[in-house]
Amino acid sequence: MAPESPPEFDETFVEALDLLLRWRRDVRRFRPDPLPAGALEALVARAALAPSVGNSQPWRFVRVADPARRAAVKAEFERCNAAALAGQDEERAVRYAKLKLAGLDRAPEHLAVFCDDATTAGHGLGRATMPETLRYSAVGAVFALWLAARARGIGIGWVSILEPAHVAAILDVQRDWSLVAYLCVGWPETDSDTPELERAGWQARDPRAGEILAR
Amino acid sequence: MAPESPPEFDETFVEALDLLLRWRRDVRRFRPDPLPAGALEALVARAALAPSVGNSQPWRFVRVADPARRAAVKAEFERCNAAALAGQDEERAVRYAKLKLAGLDRAPEHLAVFCDDATTAGHGLGRATMPETLRYSAVGAVFALWLAARARGIGIGWVSILEPAHVAAILDVQRDWSLVAYLCVGWPETDSDTPELERAGWQARDPRAGEILAR
Repeated sequence: MAPESPPEFDETFVEALDLLLRWRRDVRRFRPDPLPAGALEALVARAALAPSVGNSQPWRFVRVADPARRAAVKAEFERCNAAALAGQDEERAVRYAKLKLAGLDRAPEHLAVFCDDATTAGHGLGRATMPETLRYSAVGAVFALWLAARARGIGIGWVSILEPAHVAAILDVQRDWSLVAYLCVGWPETDSDTPELERAGWQARDPRAGEILAR
Repeated sequence: MAPESPPEFDETFVEALDLLLRWRRDVRRFRPDPLPAGALEALVARAALAPSVGNSQPWRFVRVADPARRAAVKAEFERCNAAALAGQDEERAVRYAKLKLAGLDRAPEHLAVFCDDATTAGHGLGRATMPETLRYSAVGAVFALWLAARARGIGIGWVSILEPAHVAAILDVQRDWSLVAYLCVGWPETDSDTPELERAGWQARDPRAGEILAR
């Protein structure tokens, strides 16, 4: 097979990519309609193109369809969320209780992303001093999946109000796999260029977020 | 200002995004030509559009231009890389020694990305059970920057063969900032759709990387 020539990305693409980054959202409100056949597989294939330390590709994907396992994950979220609410100060607690923090009830797909902490792929390269880069690589896969999804009109919601070890037990995965992200995947009810937590008055844009310090 | 209507991403864009994901590379071989004025700032602005836990936006960017600090980071890399080489088994060590693992010598820009572990933005939301999601958010910013760069023909190389605390000391940043990534930024010598570590015979594609487990 002849090698492909490198793609040239024109100004139109660069501008559309900027729009994609601006309109990517963490989605908690889904329409329950299923995704088309093959859609989740297509997203996972894009996720697997993410960078990884030493080319270790440590991401592992688990599609959660079993109703009993889904219910157990939802119960785990509710338990952790109640504890988080109890930990808020009085003023914040009222606002916290009003937030919708997960779309576990309606999203047609649940996808858990693990890091295989025991993989030998990559032969340890690049992670002697920063072993956390193995899990960071799985985070890159989540982000690639997120953008590939949004480009197709599919929304992603990242649920982190869970005890990772409990989710690993519910999903009965290998002992060396650590939960990196539990994702709700489906069609969003609405689109927005503003984070839901900003719209809800929880946390606005931080002016420090785009600063560059000089050294 | 009237609200913008949500963008529609057509098939042409989706295919170009796939190409972007496929041709994004970790770059270690740079042409030394400078970036245009404002280019780094534009990339950081896109990075700041990444998702973050509780909308905490904990990424902090440090542009390293001072020759003495750059030399200190390079010496730190060389020290850590020599230790990593010494830790390889005999057969791998020969191959490890031949790899080029950083473009610190030629990249026109060095950009360090930290996580502000002490930020109060987000009010702790979403990270009671998974505090690591704060640093994962900074990883998302790195990945957004990477794609925005590649779309503009600019290459990124992530150097992880460094002691994070040493780099933080060299760059004299706040005590609560943890190094997430040290990036070389510049024009790549070549483009490829295959990771350099695969081309060098270090680590090929892992057949498990695109699998989906059912639960």
